[in-house]
Amino acid sequence: MITVTAMKWAPPFAAGQVRDHRVRWILNEVGWPYEVRLVDAPTMKSARYLGAQQPFGQLPVLEEEGRPPLFESGAIVLDVAMRAGRYIGADGTPERSAAIQWVVAGLNSVEPFLFNVAEVEYFMDDPAAQAARRPAVTAMAKERLALLEKARDGRAWFVGDAFSVADLMVASILKIAHRLELLNDLPALAAWQQAILARPAHVKAEQDQMAEIARHSSADMRYDAVPKPPAR
Amino acid sequence: MITVTAMKWAPPFAAGQVRDHRVRWILNEVGWPYEVRLVDAPTMKSARYLGAQQPFGQLPVLEEEGRPPLFESGAIVLDVAMRAGRYIGADGTPERSAAIQWVVAGLNSVEPFLFNVAEVEYFMDDPAAQAARRPAVTAMAKERLALLEKARDGRAWFVGDAFSVADLMVASILKIAHRLELLNDLPALAAWQQAILARPAHVKAEQDQMAEIARHSSADMRYDAVPKPPAR
Repeated sequence: MITVTAMKWAPPFAAGQVRDHRVRWILNEVGWPYEVRLVDAPTMKSARYLGAQQPFGQLPVLEEEGRPPLFESGAIVLDVAMRAGRYIGADGTPERSAAIQWVVAGLNSVEPFLFNVAEVEYFMDDPAAQAARRPAVTAMAKERLALLEKARDGRAWFVGDAFSVADLMVASILKIAHRLELLNDLPALAAWQQAILARPAHVKAEQDQMAEIARHSSADMRYDAVPKPPAR
Repeated sequence: MITVTAMKWAPPFAAGQVRDHRVRWILNEVGWPYEVRLVDAPTMKSARYLGAQQPFGQLPVLEEEGRPPLFESGAIVLDVAMRAGRYIGADGTPERSAAIQWVVAGLNSVEPFLFNVAEVEYFMDDPAAQAARRPAVTAMAKERLALLEKARDGRAWFVGDAFSVADLMVASILKIAHRLELLNDLPALAAWQQAILARPAHVKAEQDQMAEIARHSSADMRYDAVPKPPAR
């Protein structure tokens, strides 16, 4: 049996976007059953989790009997697709090379630019600092997205003539762009993303994540319950 | 024959670190011969390059007869290793999963934190803005690096008991950390990196890149020679 680590709760701006949705999605696509283990913030920062599950205190982690825990959503998506022999082209073919290329490009050449905008909008609390940084990071993110759309060039799929992990990863990465309203000038890319996200495997992945988050609250993350070192 | 796209020139802070060194390195490791095509800035921003080579105007690109151009250094490293059947574990094994995991983790969970520091040190020109942003991004980068070193846990290799693409990618990503003096508190990680970088395949890759850069100057990048649109 496979177990996927997911967050017990997430703030509204992240609900439906926490990266375990990518793992649920590919597992749903290939039809591998799995269970979900919900974790809270103190667990994710615990020495045991850092040492045995995820060295950066992040999630998801995929656990599978007989194999070490696997982390990093991009790696899990590639790995599951390759082991299932689906949605990633055949071994040694240009289709497989291109699918890997687009997964990595999404993670390294698109997502970091979106994170820069997310940092400004969600994590900076000084309005003056936000205002100073917003124009440049927004412009850079929009430029990346425009280049991405140019590369898609009206095609339904990034690789060949069928759905692949390239589409999964790019559509997932674009979730944050959509929420930050960075796709407003790129309606064709936004429409493409919605078509990919309408796949039943994604709809179920997102709904399952949202339902778990809705059953919990910020208190269940117990950020304040992290044990403090004893006073000396 | 394989052709690798590389930059004709790079500023001192980037010399030896331009990402084509990763592609040269893995090609040297697996023993696949290749030629280098040097490009300048106007070429990289040209419609032809964006449309047919690299949609984001970056490099490297790997060109190989009978296959479409492949971009994104992380993808190229994974792809060459898998097609050569070396340094990435056998298909379907936990070793391959772990190698992919560490390549993706380096690119998505470590490198962006280093880029944030590089942005402050190399690309921000307002000293006040630099000073305001430096402490937070430096602290976050150092925390990531400390967690990475904890995950390495004294081992010579990130996966199993031999060199793999995981070591190649992590050691390459740490180049920028080293140059930004972010490894000063992590001497064991710095020593590990130097041991990996001492591999002949890397030494040649880096030397070849440095030699090409030394033969050129900023003028050869012709940033100022980009044709301007005619006045109207």
